Amino acid sequence: MKQFELAVIPGDGIGKEVVPAALDVLRTIAEVHGGLKFKFVEFPWGCDYYVEHGKMMPDDGLQILQGFDAIFLGAIGNPHLVPDHISLWGLLLKIRREFEQVINIRPAKYFRGLQSPLANPNDFDLIVVRENSEGEYSEVGGRIYRGSDEIAIQNAVFTRKGTERAMRYAFELSKKRRKHVTSATKSNGIFHTMPFWDEVFAEVKQDYPEVETASYHIDAMAAFFVTRPHMFDVIVASNLFGDILTDLGGAIMGSIGIAPAANINLNGKYPSMFEPVHGSAPDIYGKGIANPIGQIWTAKMMLDHFGEEELGSVLLKIVEDVTADGIKTPDIGGKATTREVTDEICRRLKKLV
Amino acid sequence: MKQFELAVIPGDGIGKEVVPAALDVLRTIAEVHGGLKFKFVEFPWGCDYYVEHGKMMPDDGLQILQGFDAIFLGAIGNPHLVPDHISLWGLLLKIRREFEQVINIRPAKYFRGLQSPLANPNDFDLIVVRENSEGEYSEVGGRIYRGSDEIAIQNAVFTRKGTERAMRYAFELSKKRRKHVTSATKSNGIFHTMPFWDEVFAEVKQDYPEVETASYHIDAMAAFFVTRPHMFDVIVASNLFGDILTDLGGAIMGSIGIAPAANINLNGKYPSMFEPVHGSAPDIYGKGIANPIGQIWTAKMMLDHFGEEELGSVLLKIVEDVTADGIKTPDIGGKATTREVTDEICRRLKKLV
Ligand SMILES: CC(C)[C@H](C(=O)O)[C@@H](O)C(=O)O
Ligand SMILES: CC(C)[C@H](C(=O)O)[C@@H](O)C(=O)O
Repeated sequence: MKQFELAVIPGDGIGKEVVPAALDVLRTIAEVHGGLKFKFVEFPWGCDYYVEHGKMMPDDGLQILQGFDAIFLGAIGNPHLVPDHISLWGLLLKIRREFEQVINIRPAKYFRGLQSPLANPNDFDLIVVRENSEGEYSEVGGRIYRGSDEIAIQNAVFTRKGTERAMRYAFELSKKRRKHVTSATKSNGIFHTMPFWDEVFAEVKQDYPEVETASYHIDAMAAFFVTRPHMFDVIVASNLFGDILTDLGGAIMGSIGIAPAANINLNGKYPSMFEPVHGSAPDIYGKGIANPIGQIWTAKMMLDHFGEEELGSVLLKIVEDVTADGIKTPDIGGKATTREVTDEICRRLKKLV
Repeated sequence: MKQFELAVIPGDGIGKEVVPAALDVLRTIAEVHGGLKFKFVEFPWGCDYYVEHGKMMPDDGLQILQGFDAIFLGAIGNPHLVPDHISLWGLLLKIRREFEQVINIRPAKYFRGLQSPLANPNDFDLIVVRENSEGEYSEVGGRIYRGSDEIAIQNAVFTRKGTERAMRYAFELSKKRRKHVTSATKSNGIFHTMPFWDEVFAEVKQDYPEVETASYHIDAMAAFFVTRPHMFDVIVASNLFGDILTDLGGAIMGSIGIAPAANINLNGKYPSMFEPVHGSAPDIYGKGIANPIGQIWTAKMMLDHFGEEELGSVLLKIVEDVTADGIKTPDIGGKATTREVTDEICRRLKKLV
């Protein structure tokens, strides 16, 4: 019997709807599998918690999370209650950073049953490896003066270690795929860090002669996501560029509501965290129509991480089948509720035994 | 007789093909108009020049340009000859910066005769106002250590003056359009500069109660360019975000080969510069098939800048007509050469008299 203890943080908005849905799926998976057990411990942290306690999680929040096998998170942020940079840096980005979840991986592929906004979605299948701990997302910087003379400065910090680590991860991953890595750069405009990024990429690729490479500036690359996404296999990108490309990846699939993500800790000292790409969508929260696929696909990435790739593939196939059969939420052109989609996925999972 | 002296820098790659094409169009326009005269002075600056002289332009290059009414530029960059950050910062970005071309404006719209990669291009019509002098494109920063401990730091510098200036420009522009301004931010991830950006936006919009506003994080906004571009009218964005969004704008039109741009000097001390969004495309240079529309539409923006909006509209209509009639280069699905497209546009212009 394999047993995993999961820290569950539904977070804000639709996180509170799609996380329970995905937990139902995980429970069903455990039933079906027989040799797999999950223990879920839920933490009500997020913007509501902030309103009550003046912080996004308790002071010993990280300590509490540390013992778990993984963190399963919904979405964080509700700008009506807490400014985004406070809520995100107080919880989501804090966990990514302090738990050394240095790699963020996010697949995007042609998804059956979804209407891509592209005229020719062309069966693309890519995965973005995003540097997840440094780069443009840094607390280094500040302001000087107030009023008309005010200046705000943000430091983007790229270390050799962090950059190389993300790139090596991408190359290793590509060996299990189509052996092609594309680097997202902007060395023509971003003077200091992006030429550095290019240098490290040029060096690292020497160690992977069997892997083909390409490199494009982020502006061109964003355009290629729209005009020829099938040209990509594995993409390696900085924190910000990875963020932008993965939302685009969701968009070309037909909805960022379905895009999954994993924040990976590589040194084994802390748990990894699994959270979908989409946000908390406070505008549709409470209606029971939030799309649970992003969270469920995220659960699949967690299964992969636990070494259950086969089960993961079965789950993803069922999710695609259900979508292709038209059982889907309104955001992707269906009429089903969060619950109906989830129940149908569970029903089909149960038929496997 | 209105007379304009233009400094012409074809630059690299296809710049050397599309600039002559656009000059032919401008000559024809002058003929047709009667009361308009252009004097073109060409400068062979760019990467070839660098190979010969070790610099992208002569030391007194800026002084030479200063006296002109405008600069008409093709494309800069040829990474096979000169690293991008050297070529761009030595010419294009140098001119933008030193000539205080603080605003970059770039329209994107549904374009007749082009096949958009979107399934439902939906008649969008937007314009991006890009802060063009500071932000993420800064020379501030550097490196420490070499090898495995190396760290590269890039400072993004946002001044109140620069930020507010771009925003006010966007609001003023929106008054002549659909009175809607969207701000591109990333205040949930970029800790210091983007909350500052939001604050300035919140303040500036107070002065334009008749203009509706919206604000999205750049990741979501990139996705919206694909899923619902018709939601935008005027967009105001930082240097980097504007760069990314405008390539996306080109992509959803059907080709970044047609997207135009203007770098505007606001204080009247230096000339403005007009250059298309696309790059130098060294791979197709010399074949005579480069798409001249980006450069010609850029000429139209220059006409607007000279107060010849009516002529500008006529020109753009003819360009769309020619495209819709299938006289177009291979990159947008046609069989015509650069020359054939240009000649047809000139022919139709001449029929106006
Ligand atoms: C060539 C490069 C420096 C430039 C930029 O990023 O500004 C280009 O992409 C553009 O958009 O004009
Ligand atoms: C909420 C925000 C800080 C976050 C990010 O930019 O990393 C989100 O957009 C994501 O992609 O996970």
